[in-house]
Amino acid sequence: MTEYVTRPRRFNDIWLTEYSTENLTLSMKVKKFIHAEKTKYQELLIADTYDYGRVLMLDGAYQLTEVDEFCYSEMMSHVPLCAHENPEKVLIIGGGDGAIMREVFKHDCVKKCTLVDIDQRVADCSKEFLPFAGKSFEDPRCDFKCMDAMKFIHETSERYDVVIVDSTDPVDFAAGLFRADFYSDVKKIMKPGAILSELTMSPFTDKDIMQQSINEMRKIFPAVKLYWGVVPTYPSGFWTYGVAMNNPEMNPALPVRKVNGTRYYTSEIHKSAFVLPPFLEEMINR
Amino acid sequence: MTEYVTRPRRFNDIWLTEYSTENLTLSMKVKKFIHAEKTKYQELLIADTYDYGRVLMLDGAYQLTEVDEFCYSEMMSHVPLCAHENPEKVLIIGGGDGAIMREVFKHDCVKKCTLVDIDQRVADCSKEFLPFAGKSFEDPRCDFKCMDAMKFIHETSERYDVVIVDSTDPVDFAAGLFRADFYSDVKKIMKPGAILSELTMSPFTDKDIMQQSINEMRKIFPAVKLYWGVVPTYPSGFWTYGVAMNNPEMNPALPVRKVNGTRYYTSEIHKSAFVLPPFLEEMINR
Repeated sequence: MTEYVTRPRRFNDIWLTEYSTENLTLSMKVKKFIHAEKTKYQELLIADTYDYGRVLMLDGAYQLTEVDEFCYSEMMSHVPLCAHENPEKVLIIGGGDGAIMREVFKHDCVKKCTLVDIDQRVADCSKEFLPFAGKSFEDPRCDFKCMDAMKFIHETSERYDVVIVDSTDPVDFAAGLFRADFYSDVKKIMKPGAILSELTMSPFTDKDIMQQSINEMRKIFPAVKLYWGVVPTYPSGFWTYGVAMNNPEMNPALPVRKVNGTRYYTSEIHKSAFVLPPFLEEMINR
Repeated sequence: MTEYVTRPRRFNDIWLTEYSTENLTLSMKVKKFIHAEKTKYQELLIADTYDYGRVLMLDGAYQLTEVDEFCYSEMMSHVPLCAHENPEKVLIIGGGDGAIMREVFKHDCVKKCTLVDIDQRVADCSKEFLPFAGKSFEDPRCDFKCMDAMKFIHETSERYDVVIVDSTDPVDFAAGLFRADFYSDVKKIMKPGAILSELTMSPFTDKDIMQQSINEMRKIFPAVKLYWGVVPTYPSGFWTYGVAMNNPEMNPALPVRKVNGTRYYTSEIHKSAFVLPPFLEEMINR
């Protein structure tokens, strides 16, 4: 009787790989590809992975995973929101998947959250394939504008209490969102006592961008601080955020309100996030 | 004239890959392979990488990289050491590369640091190829024992102020280092008021091991606490550590001494590291 040689099943594994830098990659084994398309602005891909659940990738960069997005979404939103006494009007720039907006709506005092994202398809695909994030678009307080953020900021007559810049990496159409010109425009639509938060990447994989973003913020705002947290699926896992305020008397490290229903954020975590390791302190104060 | 097609240079890239789990990998581009051997206990590999400098891999798992080992080495050592009023005698189990021992020697009060590692080749290769870690073996306070840690603990008549368990992953010969039997033996060689610290892995990639290690510690010690920090090249980057004490009155979250020359650790970071996000608190208190 003949014994046939067969190709082992494991060679059929499909993997998703992100180049965190050109010399560093993070790969996840895929259970199922859900959706892929080239939108007007970027390559959009959604897959189910074994370790991190549903994953959204834009232009080859992990944007959000079902398992760890709370680490990022909560820290991007609740830190500025809880440092503000009464945030009623919130602006999110980018964040088209809706995860940050979901967190914003955990604050009852928020009356309206305007989300400006250039790519309608991110919002649409999130609503369809990433409901844990995308269902925030159903909240009646949601005011979604599909347009260029720079244009919106120039044209709007609204003024905001909290502005959250949740962009993709600072390349291509998002590059301008990390520069002084942009911060200067944002400043004009911030109420007195308002706070801005923005991702400032990793001190390990994106040291130059982190330093530059903070320096550009400092050119425009009298008070700028850095805080940090872990996001396992972002480059190096060590993630930083910048906060900027018009009022230098304000201490963003001090939460003045609480929020319920969180998994990463607490008032104590809020305060701790502003305690910087010396290597990081040095990087931003040189 | 003929134009020849040539194979592009970039296909000659060499990459090092770790399976953080069977469904998740972290890869680094290699500048140069430095050394590889099969020791009596494990596959040992040392390479120069572009992003993380010199890297030590044991059985396919990143143990230490030149660029980020301070995150781990400082948190494993200074937290128990600074929570102790006068640590004179320190025991490191594992840690054959010497990086933790280097941190221990930053405390002038330490009179002797015994390092017990089963694999002589790790120490030898570290001295030769990873001097930033391995040169700690030259300190006159270093007492290196190349032997099985369980055997050492059974036989020694010494008593310690601080015990640091810096093992490889809890598999094969290191599996026993995460179990109640082991903790029970360690307890016998700890002075009154002594502290034990041990890596307890990641809540994202090794939730079960983390929970089990903490539970096993709790079977033996009246006081056990978890703390956390970032180590970019360890699975998920979100790393946890357990501390256990004989004296339940002792608060390991409160540093009673300072240490100089650190890049991650400060007294404030020490305190912050014990502030747990709710998802992690829940995991260990169920």
